[in-house]
Amino acid sequence: MQTRESYEERFVCYLKENFISKPPILGIGDDCAVIPKNKEEAWLVTTDALVEGVHFLKEEISATDLGYKSVAVSVSDTSSMGGEPLYAFLSIALPKTIDWNWAKEILQGIKAACAKWNILLLGGDTVGSKRDLFLSLTLIGSAPLHQIKYRHLAKPGDLIFTTGYLGDAGGGLKALQSKTFSSKHLEPLISAHFHPEPNPKQGQWLSCHPALHAMMDLSDGLHCDLTRLIQSSQLGATVEISQLPISTSLAQACKEYQWDSIQLALTGGEDYSLLCTCDPILFPSLQKDFQKQFSTPLFEIGRITSSDRGKIIYEKQGELIQLKTPYFDHFL
Amino acid sequence: MQTRESYEERFVCYLKENFISKPPILGIGDDCAVIPKNKEEAWLVTTDALVEGVHFLKEEISATDLGYKSVAVSVSDTSSMGGEPLYAFLSIALPKTIDWNWAKEILQGIKAACAKWNILLLGGDTVGSKRDLFLSLTLIGSAPLHQIKYRHLAKPGDLIFTTGYLGDAGGGLKALQSKTFSSKHLEPLISAHFHPEPNPKQGQWLSCHPALHAMMDLSDGLHCDLTRLIQSSQLGATVEISQLPISTSLAQACKEYQWDSIQLALTGGEDYSLLCTCDPILFPSLQKDFQKQFSTPLFEIGRITSSDRGKIIYEKQGELIQLKTPYFDHFL
Repeated sequence: MQTRESYEERFVCYLKENFISKPPILGIGDDCAVIPKNKEEAWLVTTDALVEGVHFLKEEISATDLGYKSVAVSVSDTSSMGGEPLYAFLSIALPKTIDWNWAKEILQGIKAACAKWNILLLGGDTVGSKRDLFLSLTLIGSAPLHQIKYRHLAKPGDLIFTTGYLGDAGGGLKALQSKTFSSKHLEPLISAHFHPEPNPKQGQWLSCHPALHAMMDLSDGLHCDLTRLIQSSQLGATVEISQLPISTSLAQACKEYQWDSIQLALTGGEDYSLLCTCDPILFPSLQKDFQKQFSTPLFEIGRITSSDRGKIIYEKQGELIQLKTPYFDHFL
Repeated sequence: MQTRESYEERFVCYLKENFISKPPILGIGDDCAVIPKNKEEAWLVTTDALVEGVHFLKEEISATDLGYKSVAVSVSDTSSMGGEPLYAFLSIALPKTIDWNWAKEILQGIKAACAKWNILLLGGDTVGSKRDLFLSLTLIGSAPLHQIKYRHLAKPGDLIFTTGYLGDAGGGLKALQSKTFSSKHLEPLISAHFHPEPNPKQGQWLSCHPALHAMMDLSDGLHCDLTRLIQSSQLGATVEISQLPISTSLAQACKEYQWDSIQLALTGGEDYSLLCTCDPILFPSLQKDFQKQFSTPLFEIGRITSSDRGKIIYEKQGELIQLKTPYFDHFL
């Protein structure tokens, strides 16, 4: 994570410093930019890029999955601010070496994703590429202006929860990288990696709930994303390791292949569920209503604190534990 | 142009067939998508990609010019539909090999372009790239809904004109490719290639004029772009070769280096001026008013016809001439 991320983070920092927007417009710094449409509604705009050799290998991913994923990762961004995805714009650089049918299947994957979430693809740019395949999708969504949720509005004492299991997609990637395909537990993990399932309905539902304070999507792993949330809120966080939601499939795969489930849960990335903070007193009723609405639980994982700003304190059964830097370096 | 363009054109055709939008929303097929905001106004959205080794060479272009150009080409798109550029989203894939200062200068170029046209850069995605540098910029503009101009509304008998000289940027590229830097006539051509100057005020002014029927920007060369306009309008066109606007610099460079100015004017590309069709009776007053407003002329180049749909007939002093396919293949 070090060199690479620091270069990109540095670039993003420079972007933030040099391109400043003023309320009511929100620019760089959250999952989407927010552009008020009128007094009641706002547009949400997000862009996500997928680069061959960095985010996917052509030999590994199917073209339909790649197309689908390019939409899904952006849907995750509009969902996490409480929005409904509406219009997509695809920028694609196609190397000459790509088989026509493979290229066509990318669009079939995009079409399936657009149909699933009722999105209209309205334009973009199709260009040649000398070597690598590159996709960038810009998604415009819409949300009621006063229900939009941001990552910078966590409050001290907030309970932290996620809407899904952690590390499944990371486990899937690990299985693909180590060419381990034998176990049946790996199937749902590989599927989580290739076929993320963000849920705009959940994001919209949560954004309307008065208990909810901050929300963002989990794309780069809990450690990285929660760090962003607390840095943005200028607060700290405590996470209870034993509470991290690990799916049965991941737990069994970890047992079988001696993988570290905690490491995958914290740094695997591409979970594409939601990371939220809320009033702890209202959480039980929120959880009950959510379960009733979506037939899936919310997972409490920790608390927002006013100490150690921008840092996550990890605990195991209430005891402080140290997770060293190399713990977060496995994708270097 | 053959294999490469046909692959991309095929991809765009497949896109058009599979992603259909219905009025009042306009999707794929013009310079921008059109999304009505309310009864009076609409958003215009355009995306343009620049790929290393295809659209630029890192060794040739300065980082500030590259950043500036990534914005300018999109401004050209919103201008050609009569819009004002407003919000930009940058997707950039940075290879590890790029020097930090060079990367920073890309943003300085973007910042200069945003300042020039009063654009807010509100977001995007910064990712790593294994090999090539890739930029994709999505620009959102705004226009009065009923003043938006499209490429499909040309009428038989319309006069065709451009707002600028043709082939300058193509000449600049030719000079760079042939490592010809000695002549002073080349400077404005190289500048046209690196530093396009779309003019949103001209696009907005023209879009309000009742004489104007169809408008689009000139990005891929007159031959290619006018073909798109007439195919879209289901009409034909006659172009008078002797009327093609060639700048003094290009004419002198062509004389000095035995370049074909007509070929450059028709296929050089990246002119980023406007291609329009209008009522021929009203053209003289339109031209006079435009000249008064912008201190620059409009260049009449031909007529829209109802015969030979989708084909351009080239004439020289009124005599039919044949421009063979190889004439359009020099960038293969």
